[in-house]
Amino acid sequence: MTVLALDAHGGDQGLDVSVPAALSALKTDEELSIILVGDGNKMERLLADVPVGSRERIAIQQADAVIAMDAKPADVLRRGKGSSMWRAFELVTEGKADACISGGSTTAMMVLGVKLIGTLPGIQRPALMAYVPSIKGRTGLLDLGANLNVSARQLVQFAVMGSVTASVVEGVERPGVGLLNVGHEHSKGHKLVREAHAMLKALPLNYLGFIEGHDIFNGKVDVAVCDGFAGNLILKASEGLAGMMIKDLKASLIETWLSRLGAFLAAPALRRLLARRDPSSHNGAPLLGLKGVAVKSHGGADCKGMTCAILEAGREARKQVPKKIEASLHKYHLETT
Amino acid sequence: MTVLALDAHGGDQGLDVSVPAALSALKTDEELSIILVGDGNKMERLLADVPVGSRERIAIQQADAVIAMDAKPADVLRRGKGSSMWRAFELVTEGKADACISGGSTTAMMVLGVKLIGTLPGIQRPALMAYVPSIKGRTGLLDLGANLNVSARQLVQFAVMGSVTASVVEGVERPGVGLLNVGHEHSKGHKLVREAHAMLKALPLNYLGFIEGHDIFNGKVDVAVCDGFAGNLILKASEGLAGMMIKDLKASLIETWLSRLGAFLAAPALRRLLARRDPSSHNGAPLLGLKGVAVKSHGGADCKGMTCAILEAGREARKQVPKKIEASLHKYHLETT
Repeated sequence: MTVLALDAHGGDQGLDVSVPAALSALKTDEELSIILVGDGNKMERLLADVPVGSRERIAIQQADAVIAMDAKPADVLRRGKGSSMWRAFELVTEGKADACISGGSTTAMMVLGVKLIGTLPGIQRPALMAYVPSIKGRTGLLDLGANLNVSARQLVQFAVMGSVTASVVEGVERPGVGLLNVGHEHSKGHKLVREAHAMLKALPLNYLGFIEGHDIFNGKVDVAVCDGFAGNLILKASEGLAGMMIKDLKASLIETWLSRLGAFLAAPALRRLLARRDPSSHNGAPLLGLKGVAVKSHGGADCKGMTCAILEAGREARKQVPKKIEASLHKYHLETT
Repeated sequence: MTVLALDAHGGDQGLDVSVPAALSALKTDEELSIILVGDGNKMERLLADVPVGSRERIAIQQADAVIAMDAKPADVLRRGKGSSMWRAFELVTEGKADACISGGSTTAMMVLGVKLIGTLPGIQRPALMAYVPSIKGRTGLLDLGANLNVSARQLVQFAVMGSVTASVVEGVERPGVGLLNVGHEHSKGHKLVREAHAMLKALPLNYLGFIEGHDIFNGKVDVAVCDGFAGNLILKASEGLAGMMIKDLKASLIETWLSRLGAFLAAPALRRLLARRDPSSHNGAPLLGLKGVAVKSHGGADCKGMTCAILEAGREARKQVPKKIEASLHKYHLETT
């Protein structure tokens, strides 16, 4: 049985999403059990009608406070103790859970990941990897906001961690890894990416060299690596653009009675497309480089999205991603900072 | 009459796109005249059937070589002289043209912009600003690949140059300017953006503070500022994502006979949407910070796209964008490096 600790108050909608998502994850993955961390009374009420089979695999861990979405690192450390997120991470440290999940503040998760779970040898701060849809399926994009000023060595560590995760969790054989840059040629980009490029070429990864922004979506690579500043901007710009395009399309399809009829007829195909490309089905971004598994769910995730993040945490714990990352960092002599 | 020098061999399709685009621009803007720079014989042949009215406003400037798309800066300087791009820039320097346009290598354009046209006081290298569609209309995004390691002062210069251009060329009153960062809060981001943020707040621009990636598309700002590394990745990622989504949609609409019928009925509305959002209608990225006007056309631009870039160059020259940028840099004490 894989035990997950879920920060039930993380995410914009708190218990209303996390409790149903936990139940849905338990239904999908029968080898999971979940510790719901948060307001025990409220959660008990929400669990009143749950059938015994599922209820047996749910434990409740009382936590009285919630870490605010805009809490600064110092606040998290000073006042976070006893909060639902803190407790969820602590359960991993105590060996009572194999992984934790939260839809709360990324900053707070980074801070607690380092403080409570600890980083692997050679890793200063964890990297956040999200999955984005691509023509081929999906691409792991890291880092996403946690590491703004990175060294070439850190970019190389990101590449190794992304590659291990894609291979172990996604089952991709020899994942193709690309380093994001302003051009494909060796001479392009600043000193940092050129240094990382040279180091990556020397490793026995399936390193495909420099890639450009569009290569994230065209299936060229399984893992795309960049610093956390660029990664965060790319991810949010992509979310914004996709949102605008879908809004545009919807507005266009109700423009005339003819287009409305057309939309009605094409609706099943369009719905299948939206389901295939639904970002919530890719929700669940692991914090890589920690000694344990911690998965970030999008703050605005719905029940389906949160369920995906929970299942992702289960897979990563079961496949022992941290151990495998540690072994690879050691093998590639990246276990020093 | 505004005189433009067009590098007729710039862009993937060379004369086949640039000559028809020049003719189309002349038709749209009757105050333009164009110097086509390139292979004179070939161009004469393409112009054989052009009516006298248009032909009178076309001059031909012979140039025997073309700068390769992957030419390094040193190659451009050493061997570029006499090429179509070099000659087009030179015509601006010589005062024979008010602006130049090329669909060739961005690197080469940067190099020749600095060498032949020269930068304004306080500007080391020009910034490249592209227009991307937004819910409100379009957003100017700069810098795009030219400046990879920027200072806070350079980010501030980008903001001023983008604001002046949006106001003068687009006619936006007090354009809203945002600085791209990983969060909206003052404490977010690395030292560089926080420094630039503090400097921007002190200027009488309509500075709206930090923005995130999605704000590029949601109409929050008219100008979005970032370093050239992040800007290039964002732009290309957006192009890649939009391409994937349109491909997806097309595939989805031919999935079943019902969806095909639906697509047929909705086609006029969908075509209007595509026309409204067509990236080629936003083609034409000015190199800002030069003493003269130079506009970069997308390498893969079709005739419509190249026409837009030519018209953009005409507008910028007529509105004397470089002079107005110079005045603003001076006013804001940004005319030292």
